[in-house]
Amino acid sequence: MIISGKQYKSVWMQDGKVCLVDQNKLPFEFDTVICSTSEEVAKAIQNMTVRGAPAIGAAGAYGLAMSAQSAPEDDFGSHLRRVVDLLLAARPTAVDLRNAVLQVYEHTLSFLPDITQARVEAISAAETFASSSAEECRLIGEHGQSLIEDWMGILTHCNAGALATVDWGTALSVLRIAWSTGRKFFVYVDETRPRLQGSRLTAFELQQEGIPHAIITDSMAGWMMRQNKINLVITGADRICLNGDFANKIGTYSLAVLAHAHAIPFYVAAPISTFDFSCSKGEDIPIEDRNPEEVTRLWGKQLANPGSAALNPAFDVTPGELISGFITSKGIFKPQEAAHRIRD
Amino acid sequence: MIISGKQYKSVWMQDGKVCLVDQNKLPFEFDTVICSTSEEVAKAIQNMTVRGAPAIGAAGAYGLAMSAQSAPEDDFGSHLRRVVDLLLAARPTAVDLRNAVLQVYEHTLSFLPDITQARVEAISAAETFASSSAEECRLIGEHGQSLIEDWMGILTHCNAGALATVDWGTALSVLRIAWSTGRKFFVYVDETRPRLQGSRLTAFELQQEGIPHAIITDSMAGWMMRQNKINLVITGADRICLNGDFANKIGTYSLAVLAHAHAIPFYVAAPISTFDFSCSKGEDIPIEDRNPEEVTRLWGKQLANPGSAALNPAFDVTPGELISGFITSKGIFKPQEAAHRIRD
Repeated sequence: MIISGKQYKSVWMQDGKVCLVDQNKLPFEFDTVICSTSEEVAKAIQNMTVRGAPAIGAAGAYGLAMSAQSAPEDDFGSHLRRVVDLLLAARPTAVDLRNAVLQVYEHTLSFLPDITQARVEAISAAETFASSSAEECRLIGEHGQSLIEDWMGILTHCNAGALATVDWGTALSVLRIAWSTGRKFFVYVDETRPRLQGSRLTAFELQQEGIPHAIITDSMAGWMMRQNKINLVITGADRICLNGDFANKIGTYSLAVLAHAHAIPFYVAAPISTFDFSCSKGEDIPIEDRNPEEVTRLWGKQLANPGSAALNPAFDVTPGELISGFITSKGIFKPQEAAHRIRD
Repeated sequence: MIISGKQYKSVWMQDGKVCLVDQNKLPFEFDTVICSTSEEVAKAIQNMTVRGAPAIGAAGAYGLAMSAQSAPEDDFGSHLRRVVDLLLAARPTAVDLRNAVLQVYEHTLSFLPDITQARVEAISAAETFASSSAEECRLIGEHGQSLIEDWMGILTHCNAGALATVDWGTALSVLRIAWSTGRKFFVYVDETRPRLQGSRLTAFELQQEGIPHAIITDSMAGWMMRQNKINLVITGADRICLNGDFANKIGTYSLAVLAHAHAIPFYVAAPISTFDFSCSKGEDIPIEDRNPEEVTRLWGKQLANPGSAALNPAFDVTPGELISGFITSKGIFKPQEAAHRIRD
């Protein structure tokens, strides 16, 4: 992705350290965070310096690879296991994180007892995860762009962009690639309370690409649909079950019900690693409750009535039958068959 | 209503001036604004120092009555007409404002050429509007409380409270009176972006009454419904048409579609003055577009990506067929028959 005219990825490794675009500071300030320990990586995942399922996965993968370089030889395997546990605990709902970290972990351990080789392979496995993740997102865009027609109004929620992945994005990869082929459309960007990833990050990415867009509050989406301003909804996903149910940023479920009621196609763009083949249905997905102060406070100041409690589930689960399909690097599939088609 | 242990109305007249609880400062600071001119009243309506259809109506009524005291004798009628135009332009969607101001205007003019009497009658008409508005809200609560059962989860949007009316509230009058009769329930308070009237004002009012509640972002409502946490939705309205379509705070339409999809009863509590007998259907309601900076900025600082546009329709229109009924001071009526039953 381009930021201020320079090519960036959201996560990369440099001089043996894990580097991240600081997504908490965007769009007001561009900065990178350099993590020297797995604790710092876990913290960056938890406080959302890095966010978005594939970007979190790459950060976790690089974090574990970095740990492998300094893990004591006499405790190599169990040291890495503790780092795995630390990293996975940072965001319990994101299956990409688990997949990425376990992939690096298993690949690395398979070279034991040759610890020198295992260390080299840890880096290599993390790099492979990151670069194939970026390429996969490009393919998602190639497949998905066929859904975009000229003069469509397209709604997206949260940030399923290059910032959320290693590069390209998922939902935004579709828009990026359609735009690059000359199609003209307009994007409605849900601001995505409480953390405003839409109005901050998605709007930032679309602006960098020159794609026309307007921010709306989450509560406006239904009204835009009612007025026939929205012809297509595309979001990302954080976890997809075998039956097509999926978890994504809180508010996605409401959008899916609204799109369904207005007969508007709703597609979910996601890398293969987002499919959780061990999860048969949405009820099995654990939902992370985040600090209610994300709802009641902002910039260190009280936003809501001081004496009131707030709820803050970070995700919701949308039943597969409410959506039109999943856009993947292997093609576009109906919700109920996507996981099976991808696994086969 | 009680604020810090003292009885208040949202709008009242004192020493010939129009006094308002400053709703822009609540819940962080309690202050009153004193308006000495109709321009100040119009400004207070426009910048939402006073907000909520009946409270705006009372502010407009008092504003016109105040103007009548100083209107020049040789230009009395046309002076008042200009004040009427000024006040009505402050919030074009709110029919209560128009009803209240025109009621005072017509009553006052009917005493001409006796200007001394007309001035006395202007004040009297405004006071009558305000006190009957408060009593009407109490009756709304009396009728509506029959809908509340023990242990219900009840969702409300924006602030349909005592602050929005002269006293009692509309949707919150129902909750206040049900709570005072000993029923136990839990209220989910939509924060109501962009101006956060829910998390600020509704949460504040519920806390003052001791009614258990939690703030949610607007995007969480659907997910709460999906989990069977919400058994009833009650909102206010800003304008109700003959066919049962109604305008209310942006986001209401989405909630009505969501409630309908989950088979959750959705009631709209409103005073008679909110019914616009000249408006046959929702398409005829003008929707006020407010400054997009309400979406993109907060506390004078940029909240969203600096280069991005935003939309800010203040209201949306919900078709009557999506809701269960209107709660009025004359009883609870089905959407399509409410206006006719009230007019008869």
